[in-house]
Amino acid sequence: MSKIMPKTMKDIARDLGVSVSTVSRALMDSPRISAVQKERIQQYAREYNFCPNMIGEALRHSKVKPMKVIGVILPEMVHYFFMSVLSGIEEEARSRGYSVMVAQSNERYEKEVAICNDFYKNKVCGIIVSQAKDTKQYGHFQKLMSNGIPLVFYDRICTGINCSRVVVDDYMGAYTAVSHLIESGCSRIAFYGSPMNMEISKNRYNGYHDALVKHGLRENPDWVKLCDNRAEAEAFTPPILRENPRPDAFFAINDDTAIGILYTAKHMGFKVPDDISICGFTNGDRSKACDPLLTTVDQRGTLVGKKAADILIGLVEGSLPMDKTVRGMVRTSLVIRGTTR
Amino acid sequence: MSKIMPKTMKDIARDLGVSVSTVSRALMDSPRISAVQKERIQQYAREYNFCPNMIGEALRHSKVKPMKVIGVILPEMVHYFFMSVLSGIEEEARSRGYSVMVAQSNERYEKEVAICNDFYKNKVCGIIVSQAKDTKQYGHFQKLMSNGIPLVFYDRICTGINCSRVVVDDYMGAYTAVSHLIESGCSRIAFYGSPMNMEISKNRYNGYHDALVKHGLRENPDWVKLCDNRAEAEAFTPPILRENPRPDAFFAINDDTAIGILYTAKHMGFKVPDDISICGFTNGDRSKACDPLLTTVDQRGTLVGKKAADILIGLVEGSLPMDKTVRGMVRTSLVIRGTTR
Repeated sequence: MSKIMPKTMKDIARDLGVSVSTVSRALMDSPRISAVQKERIQQYAREYNFCPNMIGEALRHSKVKPMKVIGVILPEMVHYFFMSVLSGIEEEARSRGYSVMVAQSNERYEKEVAICNDFYKNKVCGIIVSQAKDTKQYGHFQKLMSNGIPLVFYDRICTGINCSRVVVDDYMGAYTAVSHLIESGCSRIAFYGSPMNMEISKNRYNGYHDALVKHGLRENPDWVKLCDNRAEAEAFTPPILRENPRPDAFFAINDDTAIGILYTAKHMGFKVPDDISICGFTNGDRSKACDPLLTTVDQRGTLVGKKAADILIGLVEGSLPMDKTVRGMVRTSLVIRGTTR
Repeated sequence: MSKIMPKTMKDIARDLGVSVSTVSRALMDSPRISAVQKERIQQYAREYNFCPNMIGEALRHSKVKPMKVIGVILPEMVHYFFMSVLSGIEEEARSRGYSVMVAQSNERYEKEVAICNDFYKNKVCGIIVSQAKDTKQYGHFQKLMSNGIPLVFYDRICTGINCSRVVVDDYMGAYTAVSHLIESGCSRIAFYGSPMNMEISKNRYNGYHDALVKHGLRENPDWVKLCDNRAEAEAFTPPILRENPRPDAFFAINDDTAIGILYTAKHMGFKVPDDISICGFTNGDRSKACDPLLTTVDQRGTLVGKKAADILIGLVEGSLPMDKTVRGMVRTSLVIRGTTR
């Protein structure tokens, strides 16, 4: 890590021999200065990783005011957890005088880039984002940050850049859930998860693994499956349940997968939770509609959203310094219902 | 209904002896004209129910341009149908170059009014709204319209003002669902609904009623209940199922209520659908998580959202005249699953 202090707008103005308002206009992409001048200043700012409280300075030095609007990017909208996060952001933003602009990337990198550009054109004062599954490049995020737009990631954080974030405590959520399975009498526990390049999957797997080790149990590698939706769970589960010995419990990375396991087990004649215990992760609508009701880890999306908005507004208003990354963590809580003993 | 043509900005300018740009500025609430002048013009416009394509005229006559931003008001965000609508609006808006600003009223009139004011200040070009349950006054909507901001209602329309709207075909949805219950052998069908001052409840009840009549069946008034959530369904259903004769089918105004009936019946020892058939309305996540899967009417929120955005953009861009109300209707579809024979 470089120890050099990032440059302020005043530094840049002095270095380039222009006024502070010119620097401000260039960084706000104002039409009131020439394209050449703008590009020169923007490039210099990028080189020196300009990142103090841009918005605050812009408000002081320029008439080009950003709107009190927060841009929010959801991977998808018809999704319980993401809408809970949006709801939390909206509540926090509104109570502090900000509006919310929202868009969904549909899990596509190209759409995410287009949304970032639109948000920038719409002069949002900051962006809260959970990145698309297929996002592997980060230029669009870096560009926003170098233009002084603070970013806060939630849930699916961008590991490629050093940025503020709010995550749920996936590791402890999984650890607590699996400990509950063990303490209620289960010992042969399967894990169904997403690809391990996703932080949330890796962390939940680690929580599962460590809970087993802590309780003196061994993991059966054949029971750790890449399986994160109901259809896959319905396909994977029958052969596993015909093994001898078979699992007496399942921990699944989301409620949908857990419900696939639940109904497969029931249809095969097993009693839940007497023969087989099941625990999910989300605590969405589905967990309260299945029979029996699902034991699951509450992801507390509303709280994630509130915290993300709080951090973003802090960065925008200068109560948090833009030159360090803020890491928020929301504690999950285990909701014990009918699928565990 | 008055046959007098609504006044255009040109008419108003001539009548009041001011320029068209002054009228435009007054109606756009521009700071560039005096408060007295502004109030005088706005009042005159309200009196004459000014409503031609304001935005288009404003764009032509004024430098005060509204943003290409659509404001969306949801009664609540963590709600399957409303998030489907938002998703449809976002898709349609984005494909046509518009952004979406979103807020939730939490079913409260005061918050709805505050959101309307914020959207107006943020210069949205139009608003799509489903009104809060406790909204009884419409001044905030009328004010927006008289200021040239087109409104489109969805789902819960405002019956107090003449305004464009998109609704689902609640009547036919209910009629088709109840006909399916009858044609699959049920004859003693109960209805659980919301208060009849809500359009959607009235229309779904009428569909239920007419399907019975059409098939030569009579309604039992004791089996038409004000009951629209799971907890109430769990309270109301046991005494009804102990009657002799008892209902052999239930049609519920939403999936949540239907699931309350389903589990109550199962826990009382009835077989679903052999002894009792159940049909809901929504087709949300819950309907795919219960056991057996719920037969329900798909409300097609995404389509409702797309249609609402299409109408709004038409009004904003002038391809639809602002002086008539557009009524969009989305056909529901019955999804037959495991709770009906």
